[in-house]
Amino acid sequence: MIYVGILGFGVVGSGVAEVIEMNIAKINNHLGQELQVKRILDVRHFSDHPMADRITVNADDIFEDDDISIIVETIGGSGIAYDYTVRALSAGKTVVTSNKELVSTHGVELMQLAELNTCSYLFEGAVGGGIPIIRPLHRCLAANRIMSITGILNGTTNYILTRMTEEGKDFSSALRRAQEKGYAEQNPAADIDGIDTQRKISILASIAMNGAYVNPGEIYAEGISLIGVTDIAYAKAFGCKIKLLAIFLNPNDRKANILVAPHFVSREDPICVADGVYNAIHVYGNALGGVMFYGKGAGKLATASAVVGDILDGALHKGRNAHITPWFYPAESAVVPHHEMNVKALIRVSGRPSIDQISGYFPESTVESVPFVSDEESAFIVGKEGNLTELDLEEAVKCIPGYISRIRIYSSEQ
Amino acid sequence: MIYVGILGFGVVGSGVAEVIEMNIAKINNHLGQELQVKRILDVRHFSDHPMADRITVNADDIFEDDDISIIVETIGGSGIAYDYTVRALSAGKTVVTSNKELVSTHGVELMQLAELNTCSYLFEGAVGGGIPIIRPLHRCLAANRIMSITGILNGTTNYILTRMTEEGKDFSSALRRAQEKGYAEQNPAADIDGIDTQRKISILASIAMNGAYVNPGEIYAEGISLIGVTDIAYAKAFGCKIKLLAIFLNPNDRKANILVAPHFVSREDPICVADGVYNAIHVYGNALGGVMFYGKGAGKLATASAVVGDILDGALHKGRNAHITPWFYPAESAVVPHHEMNVKALIRVSGRPSIDQISGYFPESTVESVPFVSDEESAFIVGKEGNLTELDLEEAVKCIPGYISRIRIYSSEQ
Repeated sequence: MIYVGILGFGVVGSGVAEVIEMNIAKINNHLGQELQVKRILDVRHFSDHPMADRITVNADDIFEDDDISIIVETIGGSGIAYDYTVRALSAGKTVVTSNKELVSTHGVELMQLAELNTCSYLFEGAVGGGIPIIRPLHRCLAANRIMSITGILNGTTNYILTRMTEEGKDFSSALRRAQEKGYAEQNPAADIDGIDTQRKISILASIAMNGAYVNPGEIYAEGISLIGVTDIAYAKAFGCKIKLLAIFLNPNDRKANILVAPHFVSREDPICVADGVYNAIHVYGNALGGVMFYGKGAGKLATASAVVGDILDGALHKGRNAHITPWFYPAESAVVPHHEMNVKALIRVSGRPSIDQISGYFPESTVESVPFVSDEESAFIVGKEGNLTELDLEEAVKCIPGYISRIRIYSSEQ
Repeated sequence: MIYVGILGFGVVGSGVAEVIEMNIAKINNHLGQELQVKRILDVRHFSDHPMADRITVNADDIFEDDDISIIVETIGGSGIAYDYTVRALSAGKTVVTSNKELVSTHGVELMQLAELNTCSYLFEGAVGGGIPIIRPLHRCLAANRIMSITGILNGTTNYILTRMTEEGKDFSSALRRAQEKGYAEQNPAADIDGIDTQRKISILASIAMNGAYVNPGEIYAEGISLIGVTDIAYAKAFGCKIKLLAIFLNPNDRKANILVAPHFVSREDPICVADGVYNAIHVYGNALGGVMFYGKGAGKLATASAVVGDILDGALHKGRNAHITPWFYPAESAVVPHHEMNVKALIRVSGRPSIDQISGYFPESTVESVPFVSDEESAFIVGKEGNLTELDLEEAVKCIPGYISRIRIYSSEQ
């Protein structure tokens, strides 16, 4: 018998109990033994829940129960969740989570602690909800150098951008719609500003760098709150959609280029299949070539599906580490400073400046004029040759009279 | 040190050696120890190859070498490959393969043998080339009942259908083009007739049925050789593409509906992102919902990437079974007889029969007329309500004067 304890009985935690309940026959068959949720920690009262008798407010009921070998941490954040995870792993209990904040902040320490105590710290649900990505990237692609990852990793922002594209809504009404549908939180900052995506790409990048930890704080992140209807009009004119992309590029196996920002993406690009709350993650391995993973990136049962998958892997490796390569702090940052990265972008300028005027601000790069979508402004593409740095661009736009905004252009040239 | 032996130094076998060579640093880091190809079995002469000194014509050099704990079987077929696999597993050596014929024919026995000898029989490369699908389906989705799988699993036929669609070629010239490009073999029957796809879906179905083995021979398979330019014209008129689909449907967790056949697929369906030699596999789990895996389904290094990924998993589980649920022969077939399956199809009839005439042949199903794409024939959609069986359809078309052909219509109503 495998006994599981759940810390935090919110959306994902109760989803985990629900998935175990609904698929218990399949789960027990897969394990070759029975699995049971023994205890659930939550301070709230759940008298109507069929598992009400298993709920406790005393963490010791879980940590000091030697029967419980697997702990599900679905508290979230990096406060008490961190303390509990350390306590569990130190006691040799495998911890399974979908807590991207904790993994992306304290993953190094927690994975090393798991290895030290011959148990596992597993987090398939932390990226892409139920979409298998952590294990495929780490295990199935283990024979590859990971050259690039391009992800639409946040369903909230993708839903908003899709509504703006398909229904012509502006940002704030699309956001309101997302909030009404339960796809965006009342305080949507972590999604809208790209923080959630930044955490997720830090996790994927750390795996892709063979464990060399990438701190989310090192990753430049730009959100979608400044995207407007004119940007959407440009996207349509180019046969593109605007997507909040997380990009990891490591062609030379040295430092990686990583960023989170809205991009124009060609409608022909496979990743554009992900609209609404869907996520898509394209991975390029030097042996494999390109593969893509697609599905709903969030949701109670979808995320719980990934968590329970990890519980089963942890159970099958009981008393051992489930062979996750622990992360480590690299001697120096594994990330190219943002200003040094190359960029290709559309810049919008009010009025009708000539191409020569604009070219003057980009001495090293050709400037290309694009058809107008508005009477009041013009737009230009810069950086097509791949030699314009983010710093060049930032310095140039500071000087351009009437500069409005810029959006990066994605090219999948792997 | 982990020593590997390779049986058969053809395209995939030499690709395995090449991938190990090119990514050895990453591989050794992942394993925490060194990995080396020690011996290669092939009767051919490879004097120019850097591994020429490791090649032997004597199988005993591999099987009787106690250092070698992992055998790569890249011989293909189910003759000598079967004998060697039995010999290796019986000796406790893990076997890794991309041999879909052998897995789909003798998988039950070989997986049971592996479990008995505390080693593993691993075959990630047998379906989808390098696309991770076996392990995600078996491991990451372990907490789900698999309700459906829809796959474009054969790159050759998908390439031919794509050329027919995009360039207006007929079947034989598209096939010739595929042969020139090396995407189709000189004897293309196994691909064209759906046999390759039949084997692959038998493997996925056996996993999805929790190990209840589905014999490829139980799966109805229809190829693409009868698809013509008129069929392509109908597809375009409906906003569809024609795709050779493998479909597994198991909504009630009893017997599964499985078939391989060309289908009209809406261009809006995510699976239609797979054109040319690309594969896509959509899986629906009862907790997870839908996810899709996409990438090149064949190719030397892509397939080798999957094989080497399995070598690493086998190495990390040395002396144990890598927790693959062994298949078994179910007491009765797990497959719904083809004639009992429901079908929705477009039927083509020469001339201009009235809808009433055609309706007479389908007493239980409404018949819908569709716009003509040809002066000489008409077409009708039958089975929209989902109550028309394959037997009904087969019997009806036998009686319809001027009946030309029918193509099934895919609906992703999961």
